[in-house]
Amino acid sequence: MEPVLSNPTSDRVKKVRALHRRSSRERAGQFLAEGPQSVREVLRFAPGTVDAVYYVRGERSAELVELAAQRGVTTRECTPEVLAQMCEAQHPQPVVAVVRPVSVSLDEALAGDGYVVVLTNVRDPGNAGTVIRGADAAGARCVLISDSSVDIENPKVVRSTVGSLWHLPIHTGSSIEEIFAACRDAGLLLLAADGVGEQLLPDTDLTRPHAWVMGNEAWGLEPEVRDACDEVVRVPIYGHAESLNLAMAATVCMYASAAATQTTD
Amino acid sequence: MEPVLSNPTSDRVKKVRALHRRSSRERAGQFLAEGPQSVREVLRFAPGTVDAVYYVRGERSAELVELAAQRGVTTRECTPEVLAQMCEAQHPQPVVAVVRPVSVSLDEALAGDGYVVVLTNVRDPGNAGTVIRGADAAGARCVLISDSSVDIENPKVVRSTVGSLWHLPIHTGSSIEEIFAACRDAGLLLLAADGVGEQLLPDTDLTRPHAWVMGNEAWGLEPEVRDACDEVVRVPIYGHAESLNLAMAATVCMYASAAATQTTD
Repeated sequence: MEPVLSNPTSDRVKKVRALHRRSSRERAGQFLAEGPQSVREVLRFAPGTVDAVYYVRGERSAELVELAAQRGVTTRECTPEVLAQMCEAQHPQPVVAVVRPVSVSLDEALAGDGYVVVLTNVRDPGNAGTVIRGADAAGARCVLISDSSVDIENPKVVRSTVGSLWHLPIHTGSSIEEIFAACRDAGLLLLAADGVGEQLLPDTDLTRPHAWVMGNEAWGLEPEVRDACDEVVRVPIYGHAESLNLAMAATVCMYASAAATQTTD
Repeated sequence: MEPVLSNPTSDRVKKVRALHRRSSRERAGQFLAEGPQSVREVLRFAPGTVDAVYYVRGERSAELVELAAQRGVTTRECTPEVLAQMCEAQHPQPVVAVVRPVSVSLDEALAGDGYVVVLTNVRDPGNAGTVIRGADAAGARCVLISDSSVDIENPKVVRSTVGSLWHLPIHTGSSIEEIFAACRDAGLLLLAADGVGEQLLPDTDLTRPHAWVMGNEAWGLEPEVRDACDEVVRVPIYGHAESLNLAMAATVCMYASAAATQTTD
């Protein structure tokens, strides 16, 4: 049995901690899943991408250490000081996994059934993560994220997906033009979700195969991206609010798609 | 014309700044609307509650100073240093208003038409504010907030409502039992929104007059509160996500109510 990692300034600990920086993630081809929920979901849904699980012995990590062992994943016990050095989260975490990227090709992402979600120019990690979580909950086929958006391997995005990052196919690294071309090849209608749209969500036929296109949290979709879509759809505002935030609008749109396309028993 | 306020340590500036603390708000019977969006909405929808508007001369405040003058509200120019002292927001704001409470009585709040939103034990300011914004957007009759919840005059709540705090009737200060009694007197069905519910949202008849009851962001509704409701309703999860966050689940429920009760042209 290997000794407990106890030196917070060791090279190994520094290398894990460095994965909070985008440049280090790109160089290493790895990122971090911090905390029990993220570690559980990556071990359940993508164990082949997990390079190592670091943990502090205790009640909150025991089940995950066992799960990792079942999946043939290397685990290593650490002191709380070492794990605190490895993690960025505000609250001390009992476990962190070093994992490899989740992104699949556009073709693989589009292979399934159901509606698709496209994110472009989304910059806030919490918003991006919340939309991925919502896409998972609302049964989207996949999420396609254009190269102008936040890095989804940023620890804040990972945390705010609460494990959804590993629940549905996600593609990153293509331009919005490439994503639109692939969606068109797949026979999808492009529906821009934007407060400037004249067509209301309840008036939109969502039984047609479609992709929702969602833009930046502050300034919406760029005009040229909006113009490249087939329809521009607005969530109705019934009161005096000027708008909904991105995550709320996206959730309403995605649940409307789910309601139109899911068969209920 | 009064001189520009330029002393960041004056008693007046300290009194405004003190309104970031709940105890000072309660003693003074005042709270803060920070930033152009909040100040604009309180001047438009509840000018009679505004005691004073403090501003830094410039493009972002000019229109609001004019609006305040039209509404007979006292304005006072400040140096940027003074306004920075008064505000809590991370980014420098050009304007802040000192305002009196928005809460109306239960009877007044329930006087209108449409579905009602009840919040109990909601503790996170951002979540509470986002649900109020969503209730406004989705056309709720009012929002009733039980006395175990976050103080809605907390600057973080105010900011995250983006002005919706003044767009629909809001009641605070009653216990959940008093709120439920008033809803029953108003002929409303109590629908608990909770992930443990066996009844799915799409299977729920929302044409009946009803109130949505939403609980704490982390642990949902307390069992005794849930048991006091008529039906426990769950937003369906189509993918592998364990849950939706409070604001997302609330938004989906409220838009379902809007779709069922709004007449479309």
